[in-house]
Amino acid sequence: MHLRVINPTVTTSWEADTLALFQDAASAGTTVTVATIAAGTPSIESRRDEALVTPCVLRAARQAEADGCDAIAVDCMLDPGVHAAREVVGIPVLGPCEASMHLAATLGHRFSVISVAEHHRDLMIEQARRFGVESKLASVRSLDIPVLELEDDPDRTFAIMVQRVREAVELDRAQAIVLGCTGLAGQTAAVQRALAADGIRVPVIDPSAAATRLLETIVAMGLRSSRRTYSRRAGATSSWPEPAVAG
Amino acid sequence: MHLRVINPTVTTSWEADTLALFQDAASAGTTVTVATIAAGTPSIESRRDEALVTPCVLRAARQAEADGCDAIAVDCMLDPGVHAAREVVGIPVLGPCEASMHLAATLGHRFSVISVAEHHRDLMIEQARRFGVESKLASVRSLDIPVLELEDDPDRTFAIMVQRVREAVELDRAQAIVLGCTGLAGQTAAVQRALAADGIRVPVIDPSAAATRLLETIVAMGLRSSRRTYSRRAGATSSWPEPAVAG
Amino acid sequence: MHLRVINPTVTTSWEADTLALFQDAASAGTTVTVATIAAGTPSIESRRDEALVTPCVLRAARQAEADGCDAIAVDCMLDPGVHAAREVVGIPVLGPCEASMHLAATLGHRFSVISVAEHHRDLMIEQARRFGVESKLASVRSLDIPVLELEDDPDRTFAIMVQRVREAVELDRAQAIVLGCTGLAGQTAAVQRALAADGIRVPVIDPSAAATRLLETIVAMGLRSSRRTYSRRAGATSSWPEPAVAG
Amino acid sequence: MHLRVINPTVTTSWEADTLALFQDAASAGTTVTVATIAAGTPSIESRRDEALVTPCVLRAARQAEADGCDAIAVDCMLDPGVHAAREVVGIPVLGPCEASMHLAATLGHRFSVISVAEHHRDLMIEQARRFGVESKLASVRSLDIPVLELEDDPDRTFAIMVQRVREAVELDRAQAIVLGCTGLAGQTAAVQRALAADGIRVPVIDPSAAATRLLETIVAMGLRSSRRTYSRRAGATSSWPEPAVAG
Amino acid sequence: MHLRVINPTVTTSWEADTLALFQDAASAGTTVTVATIAAGTPSIESRRDEALVTPCVLRAARQAEADGCDAIAVDCMLDPGVHAAREVVGIPVLGPCEASMHLAATLGHRFSVISVAEHHRDLMIEQARRFGVESKLASVRSLDIPVLELEDDPDRTFAIMVQRVREAVELDRAQAIVLGCTGLAGQTAAVQRALAADGIRVPVIDPSAAATRLLETIVAMGLRSSRRTYSRRAGATSSWPEPAVAG
Amino acid sequence: MHLRVINPTVTTSWEADTLALFQDAASAGTTVTVATIAAGTPSIESRRDEALVTPCVLRAARQAEADGCDAIAVDCMLDPGVHAAREVVGIPVLGPCEASMHLAATLGHRFSVISVAEHHRDLMIEQARRFGVESKLASVRSLDIPVLELEDDPDRTFAIMVQRVREAVELDRAQAIVLGCTGLAGQTAAVQRALAADGIRVPVIDPSAAATRLLETIVAMGLRSSRRTYSRRAGATSSWPEPAVAG
Repeated sequence: MHLRVINPTVTTSWEADTLALFQDAASAGTTVTVATIAAGTPSIESRRDEALVTPCVLRAARQAEADGCDAIAVDCMLDPGVHAAREVVGIPVLGPCEASMHLAATLGHRFSVISVAEHHRDLMIEQARRFGVESKLASVRSLDIPVLELEDDPDRTFAIMVQRVREAVELDRAQAIVLGCTGLAGQTAAVQRALAADGIRVPVIDPSAAATRLLETIVAMGLRSSRRTYSRRAGATSSWPEPAVAG
Repeated sequence: MHLRVINPTVTTSWEADTLALFQDAASAGTTVTVATIAAGTPSIESRRDEALVTPCVLRAARQAEADGCDAIAVDCMLDPGVHAAREVVGIPVLGPCEASMHLAATLGHRFSVISVAEHHRDLMIEQARRFGVESKLASVRSLDIPVLELEDDPDRTFAIMVQRVREAVELDRAQAIVLGCTGLAGQTAAVQRALAADGIRVPVIDPSAAATRLLETIVAMGLRSSRRTYSRRAGATSSWPEPAVAG
Repeated sequence: MHLRVINPTVTTSWEADTLALFQDAASAGTTVTVATIAAGTPSIESRRDEALVTPCVLRAARQAEADGCDAIAVDCMLDPGVHAAREVVGIPVLGPCEASMHLAATLGHRFSVISVAEHHRDLMIEQARRFGVESKLASVRSLDIPVLELEDDPDRTFAIMVQRVREAVELDRAQAIVLGCTGLAGQTAAVQRALAADGIRVPVIDPSAAATRLLETIVAMGLRSSRRTYSRRAGATSSWPEPAVAG
Repeated sequence: MHLRVINPTVTTSWEADTLALFQDAASAGTTVTVATIAAGTPSIESRRDEALVTPCVLRAARQAEADGCDAIAVDCMLDPGVHAAREVVGIPVLGPCEASMHLAATLGHRFSVISVAEHHRDLMIEQARRFGVESKLASVRSLDIPVLELEDDPDRTFAIMVQRVREAVELDRAQAIVLGCTGLAGQTAAVQRALAADGIRVPVIDPSAAATRLLETIVAMGLRSSRRTYSRRAGATSSWPEPAVAG
Repeated sequence: MHLRVINPTVTTSWEADTLALFQDAASAGTTVTVATIAAGTPSIESRRDEALVTPCVLRAARQAEADGCDAIAVDCMLDPGVHAAREVVGIPVLGPCEASMHLAATLGHRFSVISVAEHHRDLMIEQARRFGVESKLASVRSLDIPVLELEDDPDRTFAIMVQRVREAVELDRAQAIVLGCTGLAGQTAAVQRALAADGIRVPVIDPSAAATRLLETIVAMGLRSSRRTYSRRAGATSSWPEPAVAG
Repeated sequence: MHLRVINPTVTTSWEADTLALFQDAASAGTTVTVATIAAGTPSIESRRDEALVTPCVLRAARQAEADGCDAIAVDCMLDPGVHAAREVVGIPVLGPCEASMHLAATLGHRFSVISVAEHHRDLMIEQARRFGVESKLASVRSLDIPVLELEDDPDRTFAIMVQRVREAVELDRAQAIVLGCTGLAGQTAAVQRALAADGIRVPVIDPSAAATRLLETIVAMGLRSSRRTYSRRAGATSSWPEPAVAG
């Protein structure tokens, strides 16, 4: 199948890493392509950012369907535009937050999310509530490193990430971890190993991989979200200006 | 105070009625102005519509603050962009759904929302959950009349509206009603009278009035939403094209 | 409109301050009068106190209606007799706790209540649950100063109050504060300023003002609680002795 | 042990039946006495009634403790004054609603309450929420016979009662029944038999018996409600007039 | 009545203490007998242990009914096989966890469970959720002493137990305590006294006694769990080998 | 990978169909083997049946691990022994109920389960609560056909199944369907087509396929349930007799 990953920011430099991350997570028969949205914000760190990128996520979703893709993942832990996109296309659309929270819930009683910044906490809680799994959310803990400094000192970032997971397990009694910082998603195995060395064996979930695999499952099982949930409205034209295609 | 009402659609013909509705609901000392967004959809009936209008709601919110307004109401029962707008302006922003649901909760144990279309039901339930009052939501009942036909036969529309309220009271045991169809908001008193004639005395809330009065209260009490909830991010520039001013 | 504030204690010395507090909070067109109940306890700090004052709150409510008042506020964070009073009068009745909790909920995701004494905690939680907003209640923190010493050292009391708000924000992640100690309600602005000086911007709600403004809103909108919720029973006479008018 | 049953109404003619009902339900070693409150309402059918009787329930509770009683039951499904009474006496106090709802919850997943009047529904739901068992409450169904006509046609009343239980089982899938109409409490066995004849085997709980037996259990186990929950306040005098002793 | 206590382990050396514990807790008219299951595990500390003992608990339940017993208690805080046993016998079956949690809920707003081992926490939370009282569960605190060492230093064990109760009261604001470690159940009175000496008056519940007394209540009231909840299936034969009778 | 499907009944005649069902649902690289438990009941329709099969499910799980399998699915909508098995093996174990409920939740706001018999309803609700998704469960509807007659008249069974799905969508507003009757799991595509012919497009989930695909995902992502949740206890020997291998 052909999985289109929408990069819901205008930071095109992330495309190669995103492609590698999702392709690695995919099954043998899945081809991944990445599309960056045409207009929006460099990153998504607030409701305002989410609002600004969403119209172009919808456009990118329509383009994915026109390109013959079988499924769409939107690569951001806020799942921007995912539910709205289900109204405008007929193929499955899923975000890493919804996918990873449900996967985490099947692995243990309580899971924690490790996010980049403290102010993401409410947004994660709000999503857990929307997805119906809030009773399973043990905590949200954040790295509290400015995004742009995440890669300045990778060793320190990694150490903090391991420390946050440890706190989630020891203090919040988390039994599964969602590594909610896309930029670090490739390190779940390393984090699991570092904790195992300390006798802490806990599943650490890469949300991108969760979204990829769950979409493969949905496609393989021939499922589509109900039109009762996500109605497709005819004729509701929009006066939005067409942004130029990025890149 | 100066209350700016944002019409989050591109249907400028609604402006006069909207102005009258909010001005009528306001206290003596409040001046109401209405601003229609620059680009978007003719009405808001889905998540996709909500997504398409939100960026321009944010722009209109910034404009309202620049115009020296004291508070902002967004005139749609989906409260599009309200929480995101709290991040980009320093003045209070409120939507009719959040305002009327909390007001209804103070009047009785259970309230019902009368919406225009059946597919709004989930969106109303989702909002009640987000606002924390879902345990008070008795039901959502809809007129099931196409929006464009709402005014074709006003008597029939009114009769159906009264019937839905009656069902909410009799079948769902609602003790307060939110009349969640903006176009009919001016008729709350008439609906209350029609029901009283049948011995059913139930408060029927005009969401626009609820938003107006609650914003007046918030301004009078000198309150502002916490920046802990709605952080203002510096420097996150957007690549959005500037839509031409509507009209 | 004419707002009657019922002082649900026999401490008549509070009348002047209560009048000033509510009148200051009211709109220009609102006249406030205060009535102290005829018999009861000097303050309300337990379920027993609440039980002892409630019959006279009901009597005072009937008197308010007979006096031609438009609305009734009961000035105590336990909202004593408020829901029962809705059965015996036809005008709106509201308490500061219900009003301020719903107002707080519209301003942020989580709010905290600052109460005077530790043993009020459960009573506040129980009320949040009854009002349907418990999922928004971040915490209840108390001053733990004996009521009679509250005014002995106002500077110390103020400092402790600011400290409790800070703890609610920093430790419990409250995004709005309800200042649930009536005697200190006039200091919300000062508390907000003190916190702002430390970079903490959080809305601090005076419950008396919230009740006043919400009642003005309910009256202006022509709303009455449903008789389905609060039935008026005919002929259920009471054998209660008539207490002499206090003072 | 000595169990004092407080009749929280001024209807002294109920005393003999109440005594028989509780004494029948008690263990061999329990002596039951009944005390009617000194002032209040003839029956309790609203929040106003509840408010008017509660001060005298507290007085009767203190009298029970002074009389050397070991436990107190308040004989009304609204449990009037029960939690406040725990503050003013040191012996256990329990009401039939709290006792029977918890007992019902141990017998099945979902229970229904059969009440006399439709307007009791919200009061029952509110109590289930306060007691923490609302997720087990399947429904509240009412006889809808005026209280004073309950005994006019006992056969018809019984038939309606059986019918309501049947509806609770068939339509609401109740797995235990609380017969929340004190006047009919003696008929639980007959109701169970009538249903068994139709192949419906469901436990039907007499709330008075539940309160009696649970109080015996609490006394036998040497338990007292925590003073953390129900603080005894020293010196909070009341200006209440002393009502003359009824009868 | 004849109460059969099923010891759901193969540790027959516990029989005498178990008999004494339940007989002491029972009313005068109750005869207690204890039956150890025929095959299983020495203690129950995990879901696997629970799974292994349950078939023999069912067999022991059928034997109890054949022996003419009036009620069955299963003596373990995991209530192993209790709900399944209700399907296979017609007499009441109850476990100490369900009985004590509901009893605790009637005594205060929040209760804590003191368990032996940390890994029991989730199992207790899961049961509170199943029984519908999770909103009343303040915390689960564990002794963290290996079971086999519990009786090595009784004074130290007692001191730790008192300390855990103190923490539950002071830190988690528990208002009732369930002493969820069967081996120590006989010490509830001593624990209450030790805490009272420090000014902490809190009810401490022996789960075995709660189960005994609640079963006596259910039998005295003539109640049986509904066959709607616990259907008895005819003809579903089992291929289980018959384990030899223990001892 | 090698997926072992445990048939948790002694009905060996289902093995071939089970193998076909899971193999069809699996990815290309997955080999499926089926193992029937050694002793138990012919089908699982009650808590008693679940209790009787679980010990042998644990044994079969250990055998699967010894056979070098990578993951285990237990083929029954009650997920018998799944969580206990996670304690005794180190490879992932999942049941169709947990897998399909979480998958359904990602596809829409509310899902319904179609079960075979009415008395499964509570068991499904209890599982949804345990898995944390009860707020998403719209309803449980049952075929109410005796299991042994399911295949007597396949056309009638199919028609009833389609009718139940239609009711779930129309009456309960389900937006996703879990076809909780294993014997009919192969017909999800046919059911979807039959409904689509009537204009009802709703995803119908085969729980076996959901379990298969989710286990493939968990294995591919290198995840294991936390030992904090599912502790492996050393040395807790069991006195269970070894049942002879079935067949």
